[in-house]
Amino acid sequence: MMAKKPLNIGMIGYGFMGRAHSNAWRKVGNFFDLEYQPVLKAVAARNKAKAEDFAARWGYESVVTDWKQLIARDDIDAVDICVPNDLHMEIAIAAAKAGKMVLCEKPLARTTKEGEKMVAAVEKAKVPNLVWYNYRYVPAVTLIKQIVASGKLGRIFHYRANFLQDWTINPDVPQGGAGTWRLDVEAAGSGVTGDLLAHCIDTAMWINGGISDLSAMTETFVKKRKHAETGKMAAVGIDDAAAVMCHFENGSLGLFESTRYARGHKALYTLEINGEKGSFIWNLHDLNRVSWFDHSVEGQLRGWSSILVTDGDHPYLGKWWVPGLTIGYEHSFVHAVADFIEGLSTGTPASPTFREALETTKVCDAIIKSGKTRKWVSVA
Amino acid sequence: MMAKKPLNIGMIGYGFMGRAHSNAWRKVGNFFDLEYQPVLKAVAARNKAKAEDFAARWGYESVVTDWKQLIARDDIDAVDICVPNDLHMEIAIAAAKAGKMVLCEKPLARTTKEGEKMVAAVEKAKVPNLVWYNYRYVPAVTLIKQIVASGKLGRIFHYRANFLQDWTINPDVPQGGAGTWRLDVEAAGSGVTGDLLAHCIDTAMWINGGISDLSAMTETFVKKRKHAETGKMAAVGIDDAAAVMCHFENGSLGLFESTRYARGHKALYTLEINGEKGSFIWNLHDLNRVSWFDHSVEGQLRGWSSILVTDGDHPYLGKWWVPGLTIGYEHSFVHAVADFIEGLSTGTPASPTFREALETTKVCDAIIKSGKTRKWVSVA
Amino acid sequence: MMAKKPLNIGMIGYGFMGRAHSNAWRKVGNFFDLEYQPVLKAVAARNKAKAEDFAARWGYESVVTDWKQLIARDDIDAVDICVPNDLHMEIAIAAAKAGKMVLCEKPLARTTKEGEKMVAAVEKAKVPNLVWYNYRYVPAVTLIKQIVASGKLGRIFHYRANFLQDWTINPDVPQGGAGTWRLDVEAAGSGVTGDLLAHCIDTAMWINGGISDLSAMTETFVKKRKHAETGKMAAVGIDDAAAVMCHFENGSLGLFESTRYARGHKALYTLEINGEKGSFIWNLHDLNRVSWFDHSVEGQLRGWSSILVTDGDHPYLGKWWVPGLTIGYEHSFVHAVADFIEGLSTGTPASPTFREALETTKVCDAIIKSGKTRKWVSVA
Amino acid sequence: MMAKKPLNIGMIGYGFMGRAHSNAWRKVGNFFDLEYQPVLKAVAARNKAKAEDFAARWGYESVVTDWKQLIARDDIDAVDICVPNDLHMEIAIAAAKAGKMVLCEKPLARTTKEGEKMVAAVEKAKVPNLVWYNYRYVPAVTLIKQIVASGKLGRIFHYRANFLQDWTINPDVPQGGAGTWRLDVEAAGSGVTGDLLAHCIDTAMWINGGISDLSAMTETFVKKRKHAETGKMAAVGIDDAAAVMCHFENGSLGLFESTRYARGHKALYTLEINGEKGSFIWNLHDLNRVSWFDHSVEGQLRGWSSILVTDGDHPYLGKWWVPGLTIGYEHSFVHAVADFIEGLSTGTPASPTFREALETTKVCDAIIKSGKTRKWVSVA
Repeated sequence: MMAKKPLNIGMIGYGFMGRAHSNAWRKVGNFFDLEYQPVLKAVAARNKAKAEDFAARWGYESVVTDWKQLIARDDIDAVDICVPNDLHMEIAIAAAKAGKMVLCEKPLARTTKEGEKMVAAVEKAKVPNLVWYNYRYVPAVTLIKQIVASGKLGRIFHYRANFLQDWTINPDVPQGGAGTWRLDVEAAGSGVTGDLLAHCIDTAMWINGGISDLSAMTETFVKKRKHAETGKMAAVGIDDAAAVMCHFENGSLGLFESTRYARGHKALYTLEINGEKGSFIWNLHDLNRVSWFDHSVEGQLRGWSSILVTDGDHPYLGKWWVPGLTIGYEHSFVHAVADFIEGLSTGTPASPTFREALETTKVCDAIIKSGKTRKWVSVA
Repeated sequence: MMAKKPLNIGMIGYGFMGRAHSNAWRKVGNFFDLEYQPVLKAVAARNKAKAEDFAARWGYESVVTDWKQLIARDDIDAVDICVPNDLHMEIAIAAAKAGKMVLCEKPLARTTKEGEKMVAAVEKAKVPNLVWYNYRYVPAVTLIKQIVASGKLGRIFHYRANFLQDWTINPDVPQGGAGTWRLDVEAAGSGVTGDLLAHCIDTAMWINGGISDLSAMTETFVKKRKHAETGKMAAVGIDDAAAVMCHFENGSLGLFESTRYARGHKALYTLEINGEKGSFIWNLHDLNRVSWFDHSVEGQLRGWSSILVTDGDHPYLGKWWVPGLTIGYEHSFVHAVADFIEGLSTGTPASPTFREALETTKVCDAIIKSGKTRKWVSVA
Repeated sequence: MMAKKPLNIGMIGYGFMGRAHSNAWRKVGNFFDLEYQPVLKAVAARNKAKAEDFAARWGYESVVTDWKQLIARDDIDAVDICVPNDLHMEIAIAAAKAGKMVLCEKPLARTTKEGEKMVAAVEKAKVPNLVWYNYRYVPAVTLIKQIVASGKLGRIFHYRANFLQDWTINPDVPQGGAGTWRLDVEAAGSGVTGDLLAHCIDTAMWINGGISDLSAMTETFVKKRKHAETGKMAAVGIDDAAAVMCHFENGSLGLFESTRYARGHKALYTLEINGEKGSFIWNLHDLNRVSWFDHSVEGQLRGWSSILVTDGDHPYLGKWWVPGLTIGYEHSFVHAVADFIEGLSTGTPASPTFREALETTKVCDAIIKSGKTRKWVSVA
Repeated sequence: MMAKKPLNIGMIGYGFMGRAHSNAWRKVGNFFDLEYQPVLKAVAARNKAKAEDFAARWGYESVVTDWKQLIARDDIDAVDICVPNDLHMEIAIAAAKAGKMVLCEKPLARTTKEGEKMVAAVEKAKVPNLVWYNYRYVPAVTLIKQIVASGKLGRIFHYRANFLQDWTINPDVPQGGAGTWRLDVEAAGSGVTGDLLAHCIDTAMWINGGISDLSAMTETFVKKRKHAETGKMAAVGIDDAAAVMCHFENGSLGLFESTRYARGHKALYTLEINGEKGSFIWNLHDLNRVSWFDHSVEGQLRGWSSILVTDGDHPYLGKWWVPGLTIGYEHSFVHAVADFIEGLSTGTPASPTFREALETTKVCDAIIKSGKTRKWVSVA
């Protein structure tokens, strides 16, 4: 094994996503053969004690309390943005201007307007960039993408996906603050649309192409929640649930739904695509499996095949264990990192780039707009 | 066992539904203890040879070639309408006027206008009446209805259902004629909306109450098909696929979809209801099972319970076999017949009556209208 | 449809199996096109009132209180034995001597010795005969049989099956009497071995050929139970649970288990066969499905296919409904009757005949013997 | 976060298990709060180039080409044995004598005799010791253990488990050598018994207590295979498949099976336990789920509950992600390491220790013996 070149990572944020990304940076070199080896150089966060604990736990070499310091440092190659959505734009643009590679947690931005500025910044600076739509990197999902792209399903008629959770049914869950900023429209931009549907939309367009128009229904079931920062009851500005009907550019129909009020479902992202010659179904709770219906199989033995995606010839799986031994949620981030680093060597960027991810933000904006206007909306 | 009173049945039509209903009439007395015993008195159909074959197979005592003859007979108590939708209204009204009980295959009618006349006729004549929305009578579905009605789920947030098939993907399937009249808008009134979504809507409103407004997307994938009667290519007037977003009167959100272009699915009617305290999921392919999530179960052992609905205390099951031994599609019709006959004794009519089923037709009309106008439509 | 010849049925017994068989005789002509039409001529049972109720419910023309009267009648073509196992031999031999066709509920007999006499009787009398191992007639099981017989699985390595119930965990369940005679060794011959394992063994040998030797473990968990007839506690003579390891004649290994103490399982008969090139799995709770693994499928898309056995080209299914619409437990008996009647026309008897079913009784005897001796036993 | 004490690890071997263990050592501190932090000090392997590659990939500080050198070093606290079974005894005893903690890949040894010497060595040296029966550390399995131990299932009637693979069906798979030493009886000691059944037995006795006697059937389907080292065809000495019937000391019945000839199954370890009041089922392919039947649930809603073991109150899960987000195979090793390190602090050793794991080796020996003698064997 040849010596690897270092890739110095600067992490901004230390929450749930900070952990998921740090784990990926640390682990990728153990399993993938890449030209660059990530080095956990620094973490930036306002709370110094917590940042130091985080750094100790993950092996970051240093800590700064202002992300601007981190961006200003010469020893940082790539900036990884793991903070609430309202900070994405400012940090990403500053990082790009400083010539850093930028990896931004999804969604790209709260609005298309914000997102467009971010795209402009990274493209102007010509820095490698990625948005962490990690579910593209679940091997079963990657497999679906590859098979659909091969044309094996023929003409596509339907695509449907939903993302169902139940953690906000309790009206005592606050809005704002650590862990619950996703319920604060100022920090998050939207509710389930940007948080959950965005994943569904990103995967859908990756697999099935662009969306031309849509009609959405949005709902806020719990109208007021205490704000974690002010301690006062305040109107809830996010969408608790959203449903979307749409047309894809290829003529197929799309149906999407997301909610945090589907009792019993924890992180149930389910997708299905129906083509003339075959169909796929997948869900996140059973992420190593994919269901596949192949219409070309002889009649009596035709059925829905449950493929356990753990063989060496399945996407990314050759790097892990042996057939039958499964991987989990966190591996999707490792794959994203592996592709990102490989993209540095090959020049073919990992997906989705900021530009690609902007398309999802446009669709999300259209969903929110249609939910308010009760009209069909074109996705420009 | 006391001697039973005869209930003389006159069947109109001998197709798929003629078989399913005849089987139910013949079988109900073997398993259920009822005051009346159905007697298969006569079958009406234009093709005399086929009608005679059908009568011989099922034990009908006589054959007529004009349904009006059947209605005119004194020895017929109940008329069972198993012909294409365009004939429902005329026959049902005539039967009611003749004082016959009327059982009509679903959907009640092609349009609300037709349906209203039918309701008026049976109510004026005060004759027992039923529309064969048989899936209410699948024991697992009946169980869901009963538990939801008990309030055990608390506030309802979501109801979703779809009915997925794949049998018309082949563009060589004709429209019109025996077996394919459901593709002919004149005979059927609509496509998947009246044929499949109607089932979903009927069950949904039975379980979750009325629908206040909706927005729909409809599509005809195959624009022209040969007409079986004329032999010529003709524009297809039905909807091949439909998706619906709606609000229920109780404030919950509904999402429905139906298609005959979902490769791999044969008759996959799936429904799900999410309440504050629990959720149910059911599908027609595995009709003896229901999935139940009970949020009140202690934390570590909480999960989705797959209930095999075959115990003696499950709806209708005490009449059949023993725990673990399953029933099939046809049993739903037997249960409908059992309830209908019991309703004659108790005075509480089996459901849905024509009036109840008219609500589903109204929703179907709204779906077709919204699909054309691309606007939200109130369901009056 | 040509007029059918009558096939006059004499039923002995009116319990659970009397219902299942009567339903099959009544129904077969509605769905299958056969030369003979069963006519429910008479039912024999000691309790006259109950027999008359049964006759009224199912349409038997007459009632006798002694099975010998029934056998003596000239207007009976076929005798159907639905009484406890201790009566099988006497009735079957008498019926054969009287020249009647004989259909006997499984297991054929309590012992090989009894069974051999029964085989001799029907073969001497040259009367059509059948043992009701109905699970051969579940279409999914028939499909497995056909595909394995085609050689598609290559060399067979493993066959495993179990039949799990939980209804006797309660020690208050009595032995003896209606409904519980299966716990009385005198009436039943054995416990789970003859009642449940016999099904597993019958299917196994039908699909995978003869068994050469075996080793078994048997257990009686509840040592004493009240006897329903005497009202007194008495030692339990049956096996509550049994496990069997065996070699098939084709060199594959077999593993079987049955119990009435597997909490949560109602009638869970599961079977699996593993061949060089493919495998099948099936279970009775989901009887319309079969799982199929085809090793020849290209690598990335290889998996376990869940086949919904409801298509027109699946065994027996062309006679029922349409793809996606399921059948239940009772249909297996209808298929057995259909094959039996067809066998009268073609001369190829339906299976298993008494002679074929005797093989299963031999294996059951070997299981009981091995359980007692704790030694491997050859199956002669 | 306080500074942690180092725990210096010396790894012997760099194969599949070397990777799985290294990953666990590296990762545990990122997720668990422990007194000691593993430091990857050295790896020992004969092939220097490969060892250096391995060290570079995983961050081992140094490389030695003789395990004795590693044991002789003062800077090693714990020796982790990841080499074929025939080397376990010698290395473990030497490490214990040198005062090192010893962690040994399962099975403990090829035979009880070897295992007893190993137990004696670690107990004499009073060094912490562990055998890597990692499946105890799958959270769903740990949960089953805890609930059964609480008595919630009441009297236990049945325990069944199997471990099904299909990777040696191809007769061209060699015996001996890297990756295939498990087919060489000299290196492995036995075939599926020590490799796969050992896992089943270990978990079974952990959950359900000791085994008193057993009867086994073993088989070698492919009699000769090329030896990877000699290049010559040689008789195969291992068991390709094994089935076991047994009695547990608590009076329940056990049934076990393992094979590498079950086409379609990759690493399908399935276990089930049936008690008077409830039952559990689990399998390795869907390792985040457990099925639970609670007989105390009210009748109509009683069923098999599929618990997604990803909540914060599930064993080990509070350390990982959030509800609904799954973990994989490798996490079981992380949990084992976490418990091992915690045991150093608390004085309560992680399980199984060498002494505990010896019980499984005794059962494995009895299986091999019974397979050869075709007799029941007591497990002393």
